[in-house]
Amino acid sequence: MTVDASILCALREMSWGVSGAELSRQLGMTRAGVWGHIEQLRALGYDIEASPHRGYRLLSSPDSLHADDLYSRLGLTRVIGREIHVFQETTSTNDVAARLARGEAREGAVVFAESQSKGRGRMGRVWLSPAGKGLWFTVLLRPNIAPAGATQLTIAAATALARAITLQTGIVPDIKWPNDILIRGRKVAGILTEMSAELDHLKDLLLGIGMDVNLETEDFPAALRQTATSLAIETGAKVNRSELAVAILRELDRDYDLINKGHFEVLAEQWQERCSTLGREVSIRVGDRVIRGQAESLDDDGALLVRGAHGHLERIIGGDVTVG
Amino acid sequence: MTVDASILCALREMSWGVSGAELSRQLGMTRAGVWGHIEQLRALGYDIEASPHRGYRLLSSPDSLHADDLYSRLGLTRVIGREIHVFQETTSTNDVAARLARGEAREGAVVFAESQSKGRGRMGRVWLSPAGKGLWFTVLLRPNIAPAGATQLTIAAATALARAITLQTGIVPDIKWPNDILIRGRKVAGILTEMSAELDHLKDLLLGIGMDVNLETEDFPAALRQTATSLAIETGAKVNRSELAVAILRELDRDYDLINKGHFEVLAEQWQERCSTLGREVSIRVGDRVIRGQAESLDDDGALLVRGAHGHLERIIGGDVTVG
Repeated sequence: MTVDASILCALREMSWGVSGAELSRQLGMTRAGVWGHIEQLRALGYDIEASPHRGYRLLSSPDSLHADDLYSRLGLTRVIGREIHVFQETTSTNDVAARLARGEAREGAVVFAESQSKGRGRMGRVWLSPAGKGLWFTVLLRPNIAPAGATQLTIAAATALARAITLQTGIVPDIKWPNDILIRGRKVAGILTEMSAELDHLKDLLLGIGMDVNLETEDFPAALRQTATSLAIETGAKVNRSELAVAILRELDRDYDLINKGHFEVLAEQWQERCSTLGREVSIRVGDRVIRGQAESLDDDGALLVRGAHGHLERIIGGDVTVG
Repeated sequence: MTVDASILCALREMSWGVSGAELSRQLGMTRAGVWGHIEQLRALGYDIEASPHRGYRLLSSPDSLHADDLYSRLGLTRVIGREIHVFQETTSTNDVAARLARGEAREGAVVFAESQSKGRGRMGRVWLSPAGKGLWFTVLLRPNIAPAGATQLTIAAATALARAITLQTGIVPDIKWPNDILIRGRKVAGILTEMSAELDHLKDLLLGIGMDVNLETEDFPAALRQTATSLAIETGAKVNRSELAVAILRELDRDYDLINKGHFEVLAEQWQERCSTLGREVSIRVGDRVIRGQAESLDDDGALLVRGAHGHLERIIGGDVTVG
């Protein structure tokens, strides 16, 4: 952990105040050094009180993503979030993560951006990502599975997003197979899974996640206002993005551990409970084909099993689903 | 086509000789300009005779890969080879092609290297690629199929390699599923298929091909001499690499057209005729698992169907096969 992350950690743990002497001891640096870091954090928007009696106290944190802050909130995870990058603006966090993946980035590295100039959804569609209003980030994974198993990770991400939303807001969202999170039928988050692979094994898997956190109705183009929503619109209050981000990473870390231990079925069950697609008549566009039938269940790889009109099962690994 | 490619094309078409006046008319440039290009080609090792009676005549071409030369030999193809890059040395042609794919490279672009410093086979294994002795190249494709269909392209490449070898040398090689070409049980070529994809569709597919053309026994490390071979070792004579390269690209262009028209079954048939894996007892290592059984056939996606001891069929998309 960096010094700034350690200081934020200590300030959050000892919310009644921590003395400069104590911080200086914990960090192994002079009290003047500690003071310098406190000043830096204040410059970043952290409101830190310094009183002779109580020492330092964190009164409030800025509404911005900051790697040290995220480390200090996240604590210890198995894989996910042990390396965090935050950019003010990028083209697309998936592109940045792909570049990092070809370099030295470790598994579980996460790339956040406050805004994306070329945020995208599936099939190259535009994803709106206004500055400071949402969570736009990518998690790099290197699971030891075949490319066909990539749907498992999308399912894991969807369940993690849904649980984190419930934890932070009390809202229980629906999941639309395989990659959308809905509240009252409107999309609040999506997942763009991209991978590089050989025929029989994944090399890098990128879970690109976009969540509309604090967008207001007027932040959406008119064409999207009937089909998209945000947590702020649904709850009537701003949601702390850093807390939410950390909740998502923790939940995803747990799900990923289940997959690595061969317990995908636990996730599949959770997913099926929340899924608005199962049991419904669906049309799924896969490339140029449209497949119609009843969405029955998930298979071991996370593919959707659809029962066609003639009673045969089709196995769908991804596509555009329309219910009804 | 570039001027150099056009000149080589004309010299090959009119092997009895072509006048400077005729070339200057065809190319729309002065005779002095034509002379300048002839001099450039000579500097590259093309032996071009200039006589007052017969005009220019191509006596011989150098044993090196040269994009203009390859264009002039290839002629018109549907997709493959309409963009060719030749490097003297690269890390790996798959890496270069991946970089070009993220830029402006068109589908069917081919990247050759005279040598690779980090040539690799499946699972990151080292692939020996000594300068000027083989064909080390990558073809960029963007087929409109799901990631699971990538095996189809590996199958197409394998049949194209086998046919091109037969055309150029008369030897009929075996195919070992999914990605090796063997002569008398020894590996002469391999295919490394890599892809970038979303869950349900491929973005870029790279067919990395390595073929041992003119390696001598002493070019192989002692450990490989029992399991690897080259066309020169098998035929007892040097093989023209440019001719062979062009034959492969033409065959692959034909196979790719079949796949795009939905006729993969034609390839699957050709493949099954040449395949030394089918009908045999095999062990296949896929990640940490070993699957044993009788290799029965290919399915529509090019996956290998293996009948296990208990009679059930397993569908294998890639792995290390041991026969027997």
